[in-house]
Amino acid sequence: MDYELLGNIHSPKDLNNIKDLNKLCDEIRHKIIETVSVNGGHLSSNLGAVELTVALHSVFNNDNDAIVWDVGHQSYTHKIITGRIGKLDTLRKEDGISGFTNSSESPYDIFTSGHSSTSISAALGLAVSKNINEDGGHVVAVIGDGALTGGLAYEGLNNTGKFNKNFTVVLNDNKMSISENVGAISRYLSKARTIPLYMKAKNTIENILDKIPIIGSDLKNLLIKFKSIIKFFFNNSTLFENMGFVCYGPIDGHNINELKSAFSIAKNINRPVLIHVITTKGKGYKFAEKNPRVFHGLSGFEIHTGSMRKKSLSFSDVFGDEICSIASKNPKICAITAAMVSGTSLSKFSYKHKKRFFDVGIAEGHAVTFAGGLSKGGLIPVFAVYSSFLQRSYDQIIHDCSLQGLNMILAIDRAGFIGDDGETHQGVFDVAFLNTIPSVTIFAPSYFIELRQMLNKAAKNPKGIIAVRYPRGGEYFCPSEFEYTGNTFDIYGKSPGDDAIIITYGRTFSFACEARNKLFKYGKAVSIMKLNIIKPIDPEAVKSAKKFSVVLFFEEGIKSGSAAEKFGAELIESEFFGKYVITAINDEFVKHAAVESQLKKYSLDSEGIIKKVLLELGIENEKKIRYNDF
Amino acid sequence: MDYELLGNIHSPKDLNNIKDLNKLCDEIRHKIIETVSVNGGHLSSNLGAVELTVALHSVFNNDNDAIVWDVGHQSYTHKIITGRIGKLDTLRKEDGISGFTNSSESPYDIFTSGHSSTSISAALGLAVSKNINEDGGHVVAVIGDGALTGGLAYEGLNNTGKFNKNFTVVLNDNKMSISENVGAISRYLSKARTIPLYMKAKNTIENILDKIPIIGSDLKNLLIKFKSIIKFFFNNSTLFENMGFVCYGPIDGHNINELKSAFSIAKNINRPVLIHVITTKGKGYKFAEKNPRVFHGLSGFEIHTGSMRKKSLSFSDVFGDEICSIASKNPKICAITAAMVSGTSLSKFSYKHKKRFFDVGIAEGHAVTFAGGLSKGGLIPVFAVYSSFLQRSYDQIIHDCSLQGLNMILAIDRAGFIGDDGETHQGVFDVAFLNTIPSVTIFAPSYFIELRQMLNKAAKNPKGIIAVRYPRGGEYFCPSEFEYTGNTFDIYGKSPGDDAIIITYGRTFSFACEARNKLFKYGKAVSIMKLNIIKPIDPEAVKSAKKFSVVLFFEEGIKSGSAAEKFGAELIESEFFGKYVITAINDEFVKHAAVESQLKKYSLDSEGIIKKVLLELGIENEKKIRYNDF
Repeated sequence: MDYELLGNIHSPKDLNNIKDLNKLCDEIRHKIIETVSVNGGHLSSNLGAVELTVALHSVFNNDNDAIVWDVGHQSYTHKIITGRIGKLDTLRKEDGISGFTNSSESPYDIFTSGHSSTSISAALGLAVSKNINEDGGHVVAVIGDGALTGGLAYEGLNNTGKFNKNFTVVLNDNKMSISENVGAISRYLSKARTIPLYMKAKNTIENILDKIPIIGSDLKNLLIKFKSIIKFFFNNSTLFENMGFVCYGPIDGHNINELKSAFSIAKNINRPVLIHVITTKGKGYKFAEKNPRVFHGLSGFEIHTGSMRKKSLSFSDVFGDEICSIASKNPKICAITAAMVSGTSLSKFSYKHKKRFFDVGIAEGHAVTFAGGLSKGGLIPVFAVYSSFLQRSYDQIIHDCSLQGLNMILAIDRAGFIGDDGETHQGVFDVAFLNTIPSVTIFAPSYFIELRQMLNKAAKNPKGIIAVRYPRGGEYFCPSEFEYTGNTFDIYGKSPGDDAIIITYGRTFSFACEARNKLFKYGKAVSIMKLNIIKPIDPEAVKSAKKFSVVLFFEEGIKSGSAAEKFGAELIESEFFGKYVITAINDEFVKHAAVESQLKKYSLDSEGIIKKVLLELGIENEKKIRYNDF
Repeated sequence: MDYELLGNIHSPKDLNNIKDLNKLCDEIRHKIIETVSVNGGHLSSNLGAVELTVALHSVFNNDNDAIVWDVGHQSYTHKIITGRIGKLDTLRKEDGISGFTNSSESPYDIFTSGHSSTSISAALGLAVSKNINEDGGHVVAVIGDGALTGGLAYEGLNNTGKFNKNFTVVLNDNKMSISENVGAISRYLSKARTIPLYMKAKNTIENILDKIPIIGSDLKNLLIKFKSIIKFFFNNSTLFENMGFVCYGPIDGHNINELKSAFSIAKNINRPVLIHVITTKGKGYKFAEKNPRVFHGLSGFEIHTGSMRKKSLSFSDVFGDEICSIASKNPKICAITAAMVSGTSLSKFSYKHKKRFFDVGIAEGHAVTFAGGLSKGGLIPVFAVYSSFLQRSYDQIIHDCSLQGLNMILAIDRAGFIGDDGETHQGVFDVAFLNTIPSVTIFAPSYFIELRQMLNKAAKNPKGIIAVRYPRGGEYFCPSEFEYTGNTFDIYGKSPGDDAIIITYGRTFSFACEARNKLFKYGKAVSIMKLNIIKPIDPEAVKSAKKFSVVLFFEEGIKSGSAAEKFGAELIESEFFGKYVITAINDEFVKHAAVESQLKKYSLDSEGIIKKVLLELGIENEKKIRYNDF
């Protein structure tokens, strides 16, 4: 495609010079499809928000105005308009632009995002600061219907009502969000959609009321009573009016003129405004319109056929399959997801065990407390959740579950590096924060067989909170001597003369094994301790490690509060007098890149492990090491 | 008072035998006032819920029914009715009954509670499990209007709408909650209160509509249009109907018959029901009715005068005073509270710097993300919050603030043991979970002067997230040699011959100093390292500790992920070969008791410190130690 108009857009102000904004939208849409087909990313949500974004940037383009995107998985048009079209081919690639908004990337990306439901609170804070600073800018939060199922969005809305300046919430209602939307909000919106322009409807009603002739005094009294009672209902008639907003909509989210006129009105109203916009996920690309869920987040496809690369078997797949078969045998097993049915591979469960399946919306806090209720009632809830999103349930795990001695399983997907989704999505905190919580047990399978066995073990006798954490993607190298033992830890090697011991868990075990094999070439024999349970740490594991004079712990997680630090503290408390070296992520966020690249950067691949071991064993002149051996 | 009726109540079923339930309520009310005047506790909320509780237990008294109390600070009547009147004098005392519901105390306390807004999610889980188990029970969640400002409550409501059995939410609307209520929900409820029996009102409207005569065809068309449009508004007219509930109310929460009949109706409706009940906080005790906020949570009072013991100066007072004066000099300072204006001593700030003060309701997640927005706008937000409640902001601190490099101050009150409020309120996790988050700095003042100085330092140059954590209550022992240095750590003692070094922070420093003085008697000289900044740990502190052969870290917090473990890990990584001993809370929850008793139990008072030091220094025959020396 010839990007005739797009070539002239370097900043939102350039939109003023474009006469045919629809043509521009076509070009943008084409550019997005082209880019995502190669780089992967979010397609459906971005295609749905093209006109919406163009209209927003046409109206709110003072230097002081700010557009805050919830999640950020609909921000590609925004990136294109705000001077980043030249970098679009680097989308989600190492050192390239992020697949979400990122404040370090552009001043137009006000907030870095990735998690859902944060935009209203953050934007409200910004709007309040603009009032205090008297800078005259307007702040817009753009939030999807799915994100409205999160409690944080509601806390934000609840605090907005009393605010009476420069603040607009655009509800981008695509009737679906990531999975099909759930709950009361969803039902409410689907009803609201059927009443076109409800603001207009309301005026009509008021006109009718005025026109009703007053005949007879009984009827007159009735009508007077009627009008006063109805006033209450009218002033609180829609969910958002109940919350103190002036509401407009529903508006066709693909009609630029309608959008622009609604935004212009909002800009001039001295109260918080909510604009309900209806968009179509995947708009303009037939395969995505037909299967918006499949085209929500993906890793590249063939444009003309819509066909995607077949993915190899993942830990998620294995989890979904195994939990489904466990549930077939055990009627107490329930599964919960927070709007990630397919991401966590619970689709099969959702139709096979319909009564015991709960998609609670993007509400991770509720998911855990609700699981606590199920557990209290004698069931065995399994909450399948991405590591990064479980951060939102920290207090619920402590206060609503652990403290009460309730039993449940947390199936933690995307644990560790997750690749190109980047720093908002890395699963690098779960071990550290779960470490702090009493009566939590953490299992760390390295292979599919272990994941299956550990799930069965957890489901058979769930005592307290049992977390089973597994990475994105599939298995890595498995040494011939590996077998599933069911032990809390296993040691590979252990010949008395071994120079050092590597301790690790999860997929890092694969890289440690590769490293071990290669280290033989340097005449170095290292043992490997594979922790199968990382919390609590078995005292016997500490005892075993003590026998070595050099202990190296490799962990694909944040260092502070890690299993490695805990192991170190237990070693030092048990009077270990050797060398102890931790390799983990030290007090920083991990940027987007391929997983392999992330592993390399943090010395958590086999090459990194080898280098660290050789360094500690005194082969300090690194030039001696022929890296091409690896 | 003669408890004539109360003496016959041993379980809820006994309510059936009482003819004069109002007299029973008088007796209960009297008993509560009597108990709280001596033991302290929550008064206003409990006095407001007497009739409500009696009515609930009269209607929902099948063995399978369950009443779930939000927060639990209104559960004293429930405790009295469910067989615990004999233990009421042990309320909030060590080994006595808890001031909240506690599942280990009674089978009638379905869930342990203490944090707000959890009841709907937990109760819904239980109700779902009852359906799956087909046990026929009904579940009731009782939640206050204040708790409805929390996002978790909303997530629960949003998931309830589609549920169509055995589930009732009782909204105990006391028009106030802990502080005056804020936000849209509050405004909505205050409007709803003015429409008596809105269910009835609605029927009236429908009757009127039917009675309007149809004259002339234009008008007829208008009216037909009118009816169809109005249908949408009617079916979605109240906030909770919007959410899929059948609604009743408002009902007088002190009229037992009215309450019982509403509950009976709810019990027989095959959809989720919300009953809006209006209660008066402090009902029946004039001082509490007049000042419900003052009598919300308190530590004993004189019944006839309502006068309370004067409290000595606390860290909270000092914080409130200092932040107010900092804000007078610096127009960028804003203060945020999550419905704890007086608890966090922000009352003065709230009227002195009204425009820069934000009470966001019980919404700790929003508080932090909103602070992020303010920070983005160039302001310096200070979120004053109890340690235990900050657990609810874990992901917001990571994703919405730290990741974005935003600057803010977290003023963490009630850090460490908090005494008689018990296990749900202990501030023992904050260091461990904040430790896991990049770009968080944690200050730990031991004395008022330090709190003031640290706040000033943080406010002057807020870089990243600066947490300043301080305990409930006031200062303890201060050695004559103490002075505020502004260093990251200070060492007291440090004579080369010292046998050991104690490392600690916060108020534990006082006890360490007392211990040190007393240890001289045993001929033992110990140094003390006082950490002023506990995250990050200054490498120089680790270097200094390395010089000692025995290092003992005392920490009033959870051990797993503690500063002590982190310090230990850094010591071992720097090749320390001495003894390292951590004294902290090992993977358990701390029960309610006086703070002194909690300190003693976990060896964190001076006596405990002395014992530990002597043990490590080899005076192992403890009999030799004359403890009455201490």
